[in-house]
Amino acid sequence: MNLFYLIDIFAVAVCAITATLEAGRKEMDLFGVLVVGLVSGVGGGTVRDLLLGRLPVFWVADETYVVSALSAGTASFFIARRMHLPANFFLIPDAIGMALFTVIGTGIALQLGFSWLIAALMGVVTAVCGGIIRDILCNEIPLIFRTEIYATASLAGALLMVALSRSGVSYNIASIAVMLVIVAIRLSAIRWHIHLPKLKTKID
Amino acid sequence: MNLFYLIDIFAVAVCAITATLEAGRKEMDLFGVLVVGLVSGVGGGTVRDLLLGRLPVFWVADETYVVSALSAGTASFFIARRMHLPANFFLIPDAIGMALFTVIGTGIALQLGFSWLIAALMGVVTAVCGGIIRDILCNEIPLIFRTEIYATASLAGALLMVALSRSGVSYNIASIAVMLVIVAIRLSAIRWHIHLPKLKTKID
Amino acid sequence: MNLFYLIDIFAVAVCAITATLEAGRKEMDLFGVLVVGLVSGVGGGTVRDLLLGRLPVFWVADETYVVSALSAGTASFFIARRMHLPANFFLIPDAIGMALFTVIGTGIALQLGFSWLIAALMGVVTAVCGGIIRDILCNEIPLIFRTEIYATASLAGALLMVALSRSGVSYNIASIAVMLVIVAIRLSAIRWHIHLPKLKTKID
Repeated sequence: MNLFYLIDIFAVAVCAITATLEAGRKEMDLFGVLVVGLVSGVGGGTVRDLLLGRLPVFWVADETYVVSALSAGTASFFIARRMHLPANFFLIPDAIGMALFTVIGTGIALQLGFSWLIAALMGVVTAVCGGIIRDILCNEIPLIFRTEIYATASLAGALLMVALSRSGVSYNIASIAVMLVIVAIRLSAIRWHIHLPKLKTKID
Repeated sequence: MNLFYLIDIFAVAVCAITATLEAGRKEMDLFGVLVVGLVSGVGGGTVRDLLLGRLPVFWVADETYVVSALSAGTASFFIARRMHLPANFFLIPDAIGMALFTVIGTGIALQLGFSWLIAALMGVVTAVCGGIIRDILCNEIPLIFRTEIYATASLAGALLMVALSRSGVSYNIASIAVMLVIVAIRLSAIRWHIHLPKLKTKID
Repeated sequence: MNLFYLIDIFAVAVCAITATLEAGRKEMDLFGVLVVGLVSGVGGGTVRDLLLGRLPVFWVADETYVVSALSAGTASFFIARRMHLPANFFLIPDAIGMALFTVIGTGIALQLGFSWLIAALMGVVTAVCGGIIRDILCNEIPLIFRTEIYATASLAGALLMVALSRSGVSYNIASIAVMLVIVAIRLSAIRWHIHLPKLKTKID
């Protein structure tokens, strides 16, 4: 039972909560809301485990993640029926969760001996796939493709994580440094509305 | 060649047929209709096998399922072009198929030694993922998130299945009891329009 | 370093480019465009590898594919911002890529000892799943379900591939013959607007 494990559980719960609120806009029922919450919370790590061949996937091997996501989703379902929540209520927890997922995904791939490129991609996959699946289930174009720098912050952090671990920095110190960098980039992007350039295809 | 295997094949075919009719509303061509039918029929078990690490997935290991889904889909494609079918024509076969998928998914996970929570989740995954993928391919918000109690019936049955098998009830007897309970819940929910509470998020 | 490997890399790049242009219509940002391009390029083979249990998936095991897709996507992003591209610019490369994916997918399943039906299905899965995932990410009903004969050309080629390899024809010769057949069918279908029959369900 170490600190990172606890934060990981917490990140799954935060993801489940934000997805619950998103699902509520679609007038899903309690079951649908819980499924969307669970899938969003564990979806990124599930895709990572499938691609790397780490089977059964992490939440089948350790059901604490499932309990965390379902409890958080149920609680937020009933809270959200009673009170207004400001839309930006979860921006900071969400940024922290995204940073942590990046660190964990990159770290797992590095430990398994994969190259820097695959490790960085796995960090991003872990961080963003949950949200992509959530938006597909809600029949939306995935938000992360159009929002302020989000996955880009995850990618920058993942690359930094690879560089630090190659330089011999310890895993714990590298993780904390990377998380701070990701959260700083993400919150700056939200604060000053920084976007990547968009493509308007001129194809006919 | 036992009874459950035959019913399983039948359930895949029923799923394929209902998906074919759904796909027809979108004016897909024959190929699209067959793909949607096949994916809906075997999708739930495929997701279950991937998550549990049972590879290759069941229909790659035993192609009878593929033949069943493709035959049923082709037949219903040509029948549906000629005659009107009442929308509720498949409600009872669909409920039976869903019940059987729940029993099989839960049973497989229990046999592999997973916990009650994971086993119950795998029952639900097997029962509902095919329909979710069908609706995503048809660009709809998955119906099961908004319909009368469906996945909830599957979950109730899966939990009962776990309880019975822990109590030493034989697999066959537990399976039949669970199937009857699921079908009864589902058909009651349709008959009296029983819904789970819906969430209207008040987020701004 | 053989010819087929080079063409495979090229096919991944072509898929990534066409997906980039499609994503541009949705006003995604650079990151979203690259993700959609990468997923479209490697998505079909990824689904095939997951179903067959060949883990880690091919592009995790050999990152050349990732580099190819990302480079092609980045280049086409910046080119597409500056100049008009005719919509049919990529029809021929796309047909070649689809043909090659079919040959590779079928060949891999045959080499692993799977039956003719599973091998043919894996050829089609490899050829079309990338495009299906692309369209889901872009929130469209997958184009291949409604376009001129596309997956059907892949299926015809995959079945021919199985027949030739069962007849003792060498892998290289069979591959080239199959690719020519697929490209001929696909380009004929585009030229003369050949469609499969569509289903208008009369269900009420």
